[in-house]
Formats: sequence, C-alpha cells, structure tokens
Amino acid sequence: MVQEAAARRVDTPPEAQSRSEALAAYRRVRAASETLCAPLEIEDYQLQAVPEASPPKWHLAHVSWFFETFILAEYLPGYRPFQPAFRHLFNSYYEQVGSYHPRAERGLLSRPTVAEVYRYRAHVDAHMTDLIDGAGEDDWPAIALRLAIGLNHEQQHQELLLTDIKRSLWANPLRPAYRDDLPQEQGRAAPLTWHAHGGGLQELGWGGAGFAYDNERPRHRAFLAPFRLASRLVSNGEYQAFIDDRGYARPELWLSDGWATIRREGWCTPLYWEEIDGDWWQFTLGGMRRLAADEPVCHLSYYEADAYARWAGARLPSEAEWELLARERAPAGNLRERGRLHPAAAEAGEGLQQLWGDVWEWTRSPYTPYPGYRTPAGAIGEYNGKFMCNQMVLRGGSCVTPGDHLRPSYRNFFYPHERWQFKGLRLAEDDET
Amino acid sequence: MVQEAAARRVDTPPEAQSRSEALAAYRRVRAASETLCAPLEIEDYQLQAVPEASPPKWHLAHVSWFFETFILAEYLPGYRPFQPAFRHLFNSYYEQVGSYHPRAERGLLSRPTVAEVYRYRAHVDAHMTDLIDGAGEDDWPAIALRLAIGLNHEQQHQELLLTDIKRSLWANPLRPAYRDDLPQEQGRAAPLTWHAHGGGLQELGWGGAGFAYDNERPRHRAFLAPFRLASRLVSNGEYQAFIDDRGYARPELWLSDGWATIRREGWCTPLYWEEIDGDWWQFTLGGMRRLAADEPVCHLSYYEADAYARWAGARLPSEAEWELLARERAPAGNLRERGRLHPAAAEAGEGLQQLWGDVWEWTRSPYTPYPGYRTPAGAIGEYNGKFMCNQMVLRGGSCVTPGDHLRPSYRNFFYPHERWQFKGLRLAEDDET
Amino acid sequence: MVQEAAARRVDTPPEAQSRSEALAAYRRVRAASETLCAPLEIEDYQLQAVPEASPPKWHLAHVSWFFETFILAEYLPGYRPFQPAFRHLFNSYYEQVGSYHPRAERGLLSRPTVAEVYRYRAHVDAHMTDLIDGAGEDDWPAIALRLAIGLNHEQQHQELLLTDIKRSLWANPLRPAYRDDLPQEQGRAAPLTWHAHGGGLQELGWGGAGFAYDNERPRHRAFLAPFRLASRLVSNGEYQAFIDDRGYARPELWLSDGWATIRREGWCTPLYWEEIDGDWWQFTLGGMRRLAADEPVCHLSYYEADAYARWAGARLPSEAEWELLARERAPAGNLRERGRLHPAAAEAGEGLQQLWGDVWEWTRSPYTPYPGYRTPAGAIGEYNGKFMCNQMVLRGGSCVTPGDHLRPSYRNFFYPHERWQFKGLRLAEDDET
Amino acid sequence: MVQEAAARRVDTPPEAQSRSEALAAYRRVRAASETLCAPLEIEDYQLQAVPEASPPKWHLAHVSWFFETFILAEYLPGYRPFQPAFRHLFNSYYEQVGSYHPRAERGLLSRPTVAEVYRYRAHVDAHMTDLIDGAGEDDWPAIALRLAIGLNHEQQHQELLLTDIKRSLWANPLRPAYRDDLPQEQGRAAPLTWHAHGGGLQELGWGGAGFAYDNERPRHRAFLAPFRLASRLVSNGEYQAFIDDRGYARPELWLSDGWATIRREGWCTPLYWEEIDGDWWQFTLGGMRRLAADEPVCHLSYYEADAYARWAGARLPSEAEWELLARERAPAGNLRERGRLHPAAAEAGEGLQQLWGDVWEWTRSPYTPYPGYRTPAGAIGEYNGKFMCNQMVLRGGSCVTPGDHLRPSYRNFFYPHERWQFKGLRLAEDDET
Repeated sequence: MVQEAAARRVDTPPEAQSRSEALAAYRRVRAASETLCAPLEIEDYQLQAVPEASPPKWHLAHVSWFFETFILAEYLPGYRPFQPAFRHLFNSYYEQVGSYHPRAERGLLSRPTVAEVYRYRAHVDAHMTDLIDGAGEDDWPAIALRLAIGLNHEQQHQELLLTDIKRSLWANPLRPAYRDDLPQEQGRAAPLTWHAHGGGLQELGWGGAGFAYDNERPRHRAFLAPFRLASRLVSNGEYQAFIDDRGYARPELWLSDGWATIRREGWCTPLYWEEIDGDWWQFTLGGMRRLAADEPVCHLSYYEADAYARWAGARLPSEAEWELLARERAPAGNLRERGRLHPAAAEAGEGLQQLWGDVWEWTRSPYTPYPGYRTPAGAIGEYNGKFMCNQMVLRGGSCVTPGDHLRPSYRNFFYPHERWQFKGLRLAEDDET
Repeated sequence: MVQEAAARRVDTPPEAQSRSEALAAYRRVRAASETLCAPLEIEDYQLQAVPEASPPKWHLAHVSWFFETFILAEYLPGYRPFQPAFRHLFNSYYEQVGSYHPRAERGLLSRPTVAEVYRYRAHVDAHMTDLIDGAGEDDWPAIALRLAIGLNHEQQHQELLLTDIKRSLWANPLRPAYRDDLPQEQGRAAPLTWHAHGGGLQELGWGGAGFAYDNERPRHRAFLAPFRLASRLVSNGEYQAFIDDRGYARPELWLSDGWATIRREGWCTPLYWEEIDGDWWQFTLGGMRRLAADEPVCHLSYYEADAYARWAGARLPSEAEWELLARERAPAGNLRERGRLHPAAAEAGEGLQQLWGDVWEWTRSPYTPYPGYRTPAGAIGEYNGKFMCNQMVLRGGSCVTPGDHLRPSYRNFFYPHERWQFKGLRLAEDDET
Repeated sequence: MVQEAAARRVDTPPEAQSRSEALAAYRRVRAASETLCAPLEIEDYQLQAVPEASPPKWHLAHVSWFFETFILAEYLPGYRPFQPAFRHLFNSYYEQVGSYHPRAERGLLSRPTVAEVYRYRAHVDAHMTDLIDGAGEDDWPAIALRLAIGLNHEQQHQELLLTDIKRSLWANPLRPAYRDDLPQEQGRAAPLTWHAHGGGLQELGWGGAGFAYDNERPRHRAFLAPFRLASRLVSNGEYQAFIDDRGYARPELWLSDGWATIRREGWCTPLYWEEIDGDWWQFTLGGMRRLAADEPVCHLSYYEADAYARWAGARLPSEAEWELLARERAPAGNLRERGRLHPAAAEAGEGLQQLWGDVWEWTRSPYTPYPGYRTPAGAIGEYNGKFMCNQMVLRGGSCVTPGDHLRPSYRNFFYPHERWQFKGLRLAEDDET
Repeated sequence: MVQEAAARRVDTPPEAQSRSEALAAYRRVRAASETLCAPLEIEDYQLQAVPEASPPKWHLAHVSWFFETFILAEYLPGYRPFQPAFRHLFNSYYEQVGSYHPRAERGLLSRPTVAEVYRYRAHVDAHMTDLIDGAGEDDWPAIALRLAIGLNHEQQHQELLLTDIKRSLWANPLRPAYRDDLPQEQGRAAPLTWHAHGGGLQELGWGGAGFAYDNERPRHRAFLAPFRLASRLVSNGEYQAFIDDRGYARPELWLSDGWATIRREGWCTPLYWEEIDGDWWQFTLGGMRRLAADEPVCHLSYYEADAYARWAGARLPSEAEWELLARERAPAGNLRERGRLHPAAAEAGEGLQQLWGDVWEWTRSPYTPYPGYRTPAGAIGEYNGKFMCNQMVLRGGSCVTPGDHLRPSYRNFFYPHERWQFKGLRLAEDDET
C-alpha cells in the first residue's frame, strides 16, 4: 500500500488531485504538527538553544504563515491576515516578502503565546478549507501546486521541530526527554557487504508527473564510473574504533576546514555523546541512553563522515551513486511513522539496507543546480535555489522524516559543520575491477 | 509611619526581632515576588533577551536557592534540598558554592516549569517557617542575620525582575506591556534650583545597629570640599536639548570609553526611546508611551550622564555628597509601592526633591571598599566585595525599588555602559564662593 | 616558441629533463621571486594587512623552506638546515611536518631580517644546485618530481606575493604604489559575442606525460549539455551597469550566503574601487588610477560574479565547459611576463578572447576531487587534497600569473567570499536550441 | 645633583626657563628617543604585536606630530607641515584634531619608511629650534608650557617604546633580544618590614610652581586613616609562593572581573614567564633569562596584584598613602638612566626602598579627577581628562622611566587587565593599633 501510494505520488500532478483528496492531505499534515507538540510543556515551545534550532512555537506559526502568505493572500479574495505583524515575525528568510525577525532571536518572542499561535493555526485552517473547497477551476492548478509545496514545507518543519527540540532540551543540564515512552530495544547490525554498480551514462533527477521540488529537476544525463556501496550504514561501534584509533587527533585524515573545525570546537565525538563514569551515553528524544554499538552512528558533521571514510579506506558516495541504487526501492524503513524516533540497527536482508530512514546520509556532492536548472520566479523561488552554495547534499531521510515526504530524487542539504540533524554515513568506493 | 518604621530599622539589629516579626517580614517579602509575577504569561517567565537580564522564573528560583543554600542547608537539621541539581542551576555567581549554569543561558531552561518553580518556593517557605519558629536561641542571631540578607536579596531581585522583564519584552517587535493598567498622568517639573553644603570633615557610611550591607560599612571619616546639588533630577526635556545640541556627536563632551561605546553601539538617545513618525516615544512597563518632557530622563549609561553634566557646565555628585544631603530625610517618594513603575515629574516643594525613587542617580564615585572594609568570610562574602572594581556607585533607589529596602548609606553599583536599570542623574557643582 | 615550449611541457615527464635543463629552470624561477621584490622597501617585506595576505619576506622564506623540507632534508645526505626554528616559522599548513606559526601572525616576525632571508635563500640554492648536479640516478625521478612541484609552488607564491602586497599596501591611507613605472594605456573592449559547444561525453583533466598537479587528474569522462561561452570577460563598464541597476540592493539576485556577506561587509563595489569627488578610481599595483570602463572587472567574490551573471540573464561556466574550449589554444595573453600587472581590455579577434591571463575566471564548479582521485601519500599530499571542500574552481590565470605555469587542466580554487586575487568572470548559458 | 635638579623642577615654571635651557632640554629629550632606537633593525621599527603596543616608528613620528600640531602649527607663522597626511596618520586619539588611523593598524604602515620618519623628525627639530630661539615674549609663556608638555609626552612614549618593543619581540618564537649587552647581575632582596603613617587630614597633589600634568592638580585635602606600607616591592619568589599555593585556582582570592579575566585568558603566571624543561624563565629586554627570585615581580595586571595582596593578608596602598610617603624623597633608584632596563632586587637600607623605579606600583585607587579638577580647554585637554574612568592609578615609575620625568604627585594609569608595562606591587595594611 505504501508502494501504491508512492506510485500514485509519482504519477499524479498536484492539480489532478480531487478537492477532497487535497483537503484530506491538508488536514493530515496539519494535524501531524500538533500531534508532535503534544508532549511539550508550554515552556518548551519557546526554546531556542542555538540560532539554527528554532522554537516549536515558531515552527507552528511559520508554516501557517507560509500558507497565509503564498496562498491565502494571493488566492482568497478579501482575505485579512490574522495579525499583520506576523508577516514580519514569522517570515523565515524570504527577502522578497519583506523584513524578518532575526533568526537568532526567535526564542525571545513570548508573545504571541502558545494559545494564540494555535488560534492562528485554526484561523489559517478555516480559510484554507474554504479555499480548497471553493477555488475556481482557473485558479486551482496554481493553488494545488502551492498547496503541495506548503504541505511538503510543513513536513520539513516537522522534522526540524524534532531535531530542534532535541538540541534545545540538551542545553538543559537536567537533560529532559521529549518523550519518556519511546521504544528502546536494540538490535544487532547485519555484517557489512558491498554492492557494485557499473555506472555509465545515466538519467538522474526527477522525471515524474507528481510533485517534486524544483531542485530535483530537470531530469538530466550524467556519466558515472563503476562503484560499490556498502550494504548498510556505519555503526556506533565502527565509529568508536575510529575514535579509539586516534581519529580525531590525526590531521592526515581530515579536510583542512574539518581539522580547523574540530580543533576550534574541541570535538572528539559525535554530537550528543557524553562520557559518564567511564561509559558512553547519548542524548536521545527519549532522554539519556547507553550508547548502542550496533545502531547507526548519528549527528556527524560532513567533516567527521569524510574523515571516517578516509580512515576506513573508502569514501562517501556521490548523490548520483546513491540515487541510482535507491530508486529501485520505495521509501520504507525506520521513518517517523515507525515511532522509534531514533536510528535502529540494520536488519539482516538481501541487498542494500537502511537506504531510507534512520539517518540522512552525507554524500560527497556539493549542493549545486542540476544542468538546466532555473530558479522559479518570485519569492517562492527563494525556497531552494539561493542555498546552492557551500552546502553538501544528504540523501535518504531519517527516523524523524515522514515516509510520504521522500523520493529517490529528494535532495536535502546542510553546511558541512552542522550536526544537529540525524545525519550519518554509508561507505562507497571506486570499483576498479 | 514610614518614618517610624525606618527609624526602627535603623536601630534594631536583626537578631533583636521577634520570631513573629521575622516571620511576618519573610512572608511579606516572599509574597511580593509572586505578586509582581501575576501579570505574566507562562511564556514570559522564561524570557532572557540579553545576558544581564535574567528570566522571571530564574529570579523566583534563585532567591529561594539563596535561602536554601545559606540558611536551610546550614541551620535546619536534616534538610534535604528540593532537587539537588538546583544547586548548580540557580547559583548565580557564588564560586565557593560550586559550579553554576552560564548566566547567558538562563533563558534556555524550560524545565523546571513555572509550576515546579512555585512548588520549589512553597517547599522552601515551609521549611523556612519551621526554622524561624523552631531555631534554638544559640543559632538565632546567625539565622536572623542571614534572613535579613536573604530578604534584602530577594528585594533586589524584585527590582531586577521588573527591569529585566522590561528589557526582555522590548526585544519583541510587538512591544507587549508588562501591565496595561498603570497610571499615566504626567506632571510638571518644578524649576531647578541649587542647594549648597559646606563640606568639611564628615562621617559617612552606616553607623546604625540595624541591618545594612557590608559594603556600607565601616563608618568612616572623609573630607569634602564645599559643593552644590541640583534640587531635582534632569528631565527628558533637558536631555533632549543636549541631543539637539549634537551632544552625541561632540567628542569633547565624552569620556574616552564613553565615546568608543556610543560609536560602537550606535547610541544617539537613552535606551527605550524610539522615534515613530517624527515623534519620540519610550517603552515603559505599561507599553509604548509618548515621551513626557517633564519626567526624569531614564535608562542612561554613566557615560551619557557624565557627558550631559559636562555639557551643562556641571558635574555628577560624589556618593559622599549625595549621602550627606540624603540622610536628612527618610526614604519616601516615587518608589515601587506607589505603583507607578515609571519616573514622575518632580513635585514642587522646599529643598531637594526626588532624592528617593524615580531613578537611581549615577555618582562620579567608583565602587570601592570603604577604609577598613573587610570582605565577610565564606561564600556569602562574594555578595558585594568581589565587585569592587570597574563599577560606579548609584544612589537613591528608583520607581521599582521598595522603600523599606533603602537607607541613606545604601550603595548600588553598575558598570558604566549598562543602561537597562532605571538610572538617571542629578547635577552637582563645586561651590567656589 | 611559447607554443613549442608548452607542447614540450605537456609531453615531457619531469624526470626526463636533463640536469642542466632542471638547473636552468630552478635558477630562472628562483631569480624571478627576487626580481619581483626589487621594488620593495625593507619595510614593505613585512606587511600583512589581513590574515590571508602573507608578507613578501614570508613568501621568500616559505618557498625555500619547501625545497629544504621536501627535497634537501630527504635526498641530500648530511644536509643541515639553515636554522632549525625555520621548520616551524615557515611551514604554512603541513600538519604532518609539525607545528607552524599562526598564519595571522606572519607579519609579526621582524626577525629573521630581510637580509637574513636572502642568506637563507642562497644557502638553499647552493645545496639545491649540488643536489641537482650530483643526485644519483636512482633518486633522480623522485627528486625531479619534487623539484617540479617546488618550482610550480614558488610560481604560485610569486602570484600571491603580488596580490598580497597589493592588499597590504592598500591598508595604508597613503596608497603607495608597488611600482610607479607600469604601463597605463587603456584599450577598447571588443563587442561581446557567444561561442557554442555541443557538449556530450567528453574526456577531461590532465592526460599528458608532463607535470601537472594531482588535482588535475585522473583523466576522466563527463557528460555535458550543449552550452555557449561569451567571447570575452565582463568589463568594468558592464559591471557598473549592474551596480547602477541597484545590483547590490536586490536580494533576488544573490545566493543566500552572498547576500549575508555583502550586508555584513557593507560591500557595494568590487574590492579596490574608491569614489573620490564623484569619480571612480581603483587601486592597482601602480597606485590609484581612474577606473577604465573597457578593462575586465576584477577583484570580485564568487557571490558578486554569480549575482552579476544572474542579473545579466546568464550563468557562470562550469570548469568542464571552460576546459573544453580552452584546451584548443596554448596559454598566451595578458600574463605576468607582459609586465602590465593589471587586466587589459579585450583585443578584437576571432574566437574566444582572454581565456588566458587578465583575471582568473570564477566557475560554478565547487572544488571537488575528480572521479578516481587519490590524495598522494605523506605531507606532500596536503598540497591540494585537503582543500577540496567549500571552495570554488577558477580557471585561466591572471595578469600576475607566469604563462609557463598554466595548463588547460589547471585548477585554481578559493573560498567564495575572497576577493584579493585578480578574479573576474566570463558569462555562459545553456544552449537550448 | 639629582636632588638639586628635582628641586629646580619643582620651583620653576616652564616660562621661567631661559631659551637656551629650553633648547637644551628639547635636544636632550629628542636625542634620547633616537638613542633608544639605535639597537633596532629596520624591520623592528614596524612591529605591532597587539593593538596596545605601537611600533617604534609610530612613536617616533607621533611625538613629532605632537610638537607640529600643538606648537608649530599654532605658534610658528607660515609653518607648513612636513606631509599633510601625517595629521591623520600620527594622531593618536585627539578627536578634536580630526580623524586618526586606527590604533590596531599602526603596524600596517610600511610607508613612511624609517628613513623618512627620521627626516620628519629633523624637519620638526629645525622648526622647533627656530621657534624656541625666535618666539616673541608674548607667545613664550604659552609655548613654554606646550613645550614642557611635549617633552614630557615624548618621555612617556620613550617608556612605551621600550615596553612595546618588548611585547612585540616576544611574539616571535625566536625570542629576539632588544639588546644583548644589558647587565645581568642579580642581587639579594632585603627582608620585608613595615612602615607606619598616622594618616589624618593631608594636602595632596601638586602644589609647586614647576611643571606638572593637569591630572596632578589641584592641590587638595583628603583624610586618611592610619596605615602601614611594606618596605619594598613583592618579589618573584614571594609571588611564586602564591602560585604554588594555587593562587590562580582559588576564586575567593579574586575580584569577579579578575577571575573572569584569568579564566578567559588562561593566565596562571605573570606575563613573560615561560616554563622550559621544568625551570622558570622570563623574557626581558635582554632576551630570555632565568627567573630571579629576589627581583620584584613584574608584568602583573591589577587583578593579580590585588589577588596576591589578599592572599598575603594585606591590601594594595591607595595613591594618597603612597604619595604621603614618597614625597619625602626625590626620585632616585633603578630608573632608565641606570641602564639595567629590568627590575632589580631591593637593596638593604633604612626606610622605604624601591619607591622610585623598578616597577610601577598598582594602587587601589581608581583614576578619577581630583576635587576641583577642570579639563583644560581644546584638544590638549584630551591628554588626561577623558581617561578618568575604568582605569587604576599606578605610582613610582619603572626601570624604563627617565628619572627627571617623575614627581611624587605623578599619576600613571592603566586598565586593570593590562600587563605589558613594568608593573608590580607593594603591600599595605590598615594600622589599627
């Protein structure tokens, strides 16, 4: 059924959805945001421990602002914004929309209160419902496309909401858990094997009729040399061996910027690892837990992923290599809907494991426009295009990504020093045989 | 009656209070903290817009920690702390007590929640009540002294709670008010006159039997030249004339560090002034209001107060000059209990006006130990002594200071660049006649 | 003859050179460094205005250190370093060699004096001469390869020496010239035309037997879509039109990191432009000169080059596109040996102009390893490989690059915000016909 | 003879000097600056390792600028400045004179060259000679006063020149000596005894007719409690005992700002101490030397001096206490003219030793205006007055201060964190007997 839904998403352009399908999708995604916030105290909604981790309250408001700004204000006649000042407060970075509240100061907004933000959401929902029901056929294709973007946008912020609250709660010496009822069982990782691909001239990127972001397009050709991918993600135990081998103290293993970063920051483990009385623990959405050797290593910077691969005599895959193998199977695995909210040891099985879920996989590919890419016109064009510099592509989703958000051509991207997302790695190597 | 109570405070050492008096004082001060928080939303309790402005929740917990650490833990047999981690979380800066949570990160503590902090207060109150009732006579003098310090300490944090929430709310572009029911009437300032004093060899500092901080002692002799003090505080209108005369653009008016500060910070008005459509407004605890020309100018750094005085052909008073004249009258005026929570225009009247309340008055005196001063032993000695460097003395209390907290010998102190307290100035000059 | 020499370089591996050829090359390159320093005052040798611009004295010593460390210490039996402390002082960033003096503090080394650095050079030269003459045949291939790297390394530092002294002299309000005898004539730029290429599956990178850096290899295949390149570089006059069209004030033209950079730095022109009494001037190695509209725009960051291209409805070329067209012609143009030391207006002519010299051309290609690239073993492997992250590739050399240093496969790289090199751009576009 | 000259300086106002006396003084002071530079390499003249340590070349030019700006430009008819741009380049901080080159970038001025700066000095000298000879009697009193200021100013910069070059040379891992011919003998410190003074109402500050800075005036009365001063400075050996007693690790010994400073900076010894193979060395103007236990401890911040005194159960003296005892003896001791350029162990002898020379003695007195002080009018008024905030007074001169520069009322001042001057301490205590 997942496969079926996935196939449907591939083939169906947003405007071909029925109004009731559209409304159901809208309600499902919007409700999910609020469900994710259910375990929070009011006090938690405002936390922003670092500039890149926004408060839950801000996420809830910003995604509503997105619908308000890009759909209601443009397509619903006579729409009046819930509160005009929100145009500034909850704009993230859309320069063409106007000014915006400084990112690092989102945690300083005690008002609107949490209750008022929920009223804002209800206001937007009511009007979005009206619009989806009542929009004329002429407007519908444009609205349906914006709606698809808005829902995917909200799903991205759902993931950020979880990674951000994890980071923010960790700033508290009490190490409070986001939830204390998460499953904790630990599996055994299957042995690592290698899977070869012959490369060659290939078509890559999104070619379906269904929704995909602009940065996944256009479909284009690229030439690849033969390569191999590891059957599963690198585990905590394997990464521990790198640490034990003085990995963080050997400059020959590191990119120059990486070496400068770990020295400046004093990093000697992944984020969230803590040594307590001689044992390694890690902070999770379920609070502090003993480090599990067979689970995928997580919360790495690009620099650490790259250094580990070099130490292991391998390299990171390119995004093209990953996509070639991943498109053979629909997104399924340890994704958000499994409810674990933490990476799990690789199950035994044929072929490549853990391509979907668990952790985003760092690739060696800088985030650049595909050949022929054009930034969409207007403020909405700022969604992806303006970030195509200084960042690296990650693939595959994580344990906090909703499965229906992903595609084989899906490109996530972060700066190489960033660690607070669920990010890990899979090894690759040239196939010179 | 205020005079009477003041006289009593002067003459009565803390240990001479009866247990019921002590208990009543404890209850009154503790209740006042909670009353001040009544207008806050839960979200406001956690706000920390700048490192020096602590969240209300932190203040509520820290003052309780003070009683717990310096009284209950030492004098109540078998006392168990409410939550051991609070020893670290709510220690402000007492190095000898142990580690403490970084000051700039007090706003990142969503837990304990507001409700839990109130439970913490109740826990401390219950045990303090037991102790005050039940302590043996041998312990009572030491306990009574610590109690006096603890209550004065909580009163200081009550003032900070108000100045800090003002600063933190101002970080929000919505400019929310702390309360929207504050009085707003504006008076007319009396004309400024000068009051002379012959100086000479004088006794200064605290000499009473009642409670005073260690930094007000010992009573000591100092020689003063003849001087004059202005009859009232400098007003907004007068300060506006300084601005209009290019006061912020003329280096000859400024101390070197002051000039560097205003250039680096881009200051060209006091804190909280905002120009809106050609009119001057200021942010108050009651929200945005039109600037009132006759009210005392407020939220100045030492540098600005000093530059204004130089521009006016005068100087700031020394703390000794202020004390000589202020000790002739008991603390009364626009203090917290008046409920205005904002400076008011000087009333007409004989003699010096506004010595007490409205705004703390910057003096030209660096905060240094009095001759013969000794830092008290132990962690409690960190209360005042270790700050006797790089700060300037302020005198007189403000519109958010409780009147029963003040004495003529009371010394407040801040760094010269700090502006978020209610701080202004009174002019002085040498009397060379 | 240039063509002939170029052809010879392509085909001849370093070890196939005769000893006398090698010695002549060594002497020629070493002498060039000293010739470049002839116009300097002793005081100039020590200037370091910004961390990235090293003092001339440091360059002179570091390139000698390179020969000493990677050749003499390894291959000349019994060699004793000139001064053991130089191993630390003049190591640039080779972590595997050991510690190094902080980059930002190279300007703080008044000792060794300039005279002593020249003695150091003479010491190294004497021993290098001995080694080139006397090395056994077994060692020669390895020595010859290191020698080729060392000479190319010194040529790179010759370029840096000029760009760095330009930057450092500009920190002086007197705006002193490096030389006051440079030619100043200004030509007229030929009209801009477009040159198409059909793309397809191509071989790229270095495939010759002669010397090339490791980062130009291995030869590999890549697929390109059809494209067009502009016939010449963008001129000052064209860039001025972008500025006049509010280019620096329109966020939609900029990458996100670029917009943040120009706002933070306050950039509104290329580096070295200065407005004096309403006219535009620019600082050159010959001192301040009126801006010449037909000369190539220079000293741009990647962000500015990218924004200009977007404004012009075009894009930057990829490094592969540039290489495909550049390899059809040997390096010739306004290079260092022409003696202008400043970009010149494009001459009229058939085909693509200014591919070589004038300014390095920003490409849209992040600096990444070619497929199959392996970092060389040992400290020498730090030369290129560890920088393959966060930087962008530039192609073509500049007016301060020696012509015999370049190849069509030559890859230069800098961070996107850096402007102090001679860097400009050529437009490209997709050929969708 | 020293006593005689000192007495003469006390009694003779500048304008009462004969022209030939004035000229001789001018020549003597100006020549001393150049003599101090004789040991420098041209490369050393430009060194600026930290913003507060100016290059020797800059000092040489700035003191000439002072004569040019405040005397020649005002009093020599038709005077034309040597180079108009120097008005900006060599202005230190006189806002009323106009703009000035940023302090931290003085080391970036390779031009004017050293030779040109000496030509500048000769130009100023020639015109100053003309003016001193030829000024009319009406102008002479004003010129004579400015001349006295200018010469004292140049003497201050002579001291800075030495402390700055010490700091700048220390930035070089080669640890080059300023001179390698300095005397090195080490004496034995006399035992420490205490000297009492009864305090009382005293006259302080400068009351003579001869030259003194404005900040030493007016003569005024102050009341002092009885006190005792130690007979000599604190020695390296005594300070070592403080370190060995974990002085840098015990917060109860430190001012709050001091504790923050040593933690942030990582200080655990005075400046210039280095541990080499288990022994303590210190950097001196004569290069690296073994630490001598009996020599005065040197290069301390106020925070360290204050913490040491607290550890020793004593306190720092006030500037009034120091002055009361120091005015009983003329400035003589280990001053610059002795040629040691490093503190020396206290000689045995009656009464207080080392009041003059060796190291500046930190006092507990903030640098504030004396009662009745008025800032002189005009730019020259910026000399002292604008620094009367955030700094502490030091007394007594050092081993690099010329003796004829000092007076008992002389007030030096620095920020509490600054260490690069020759600064140490003498203990004081209240006399409660």
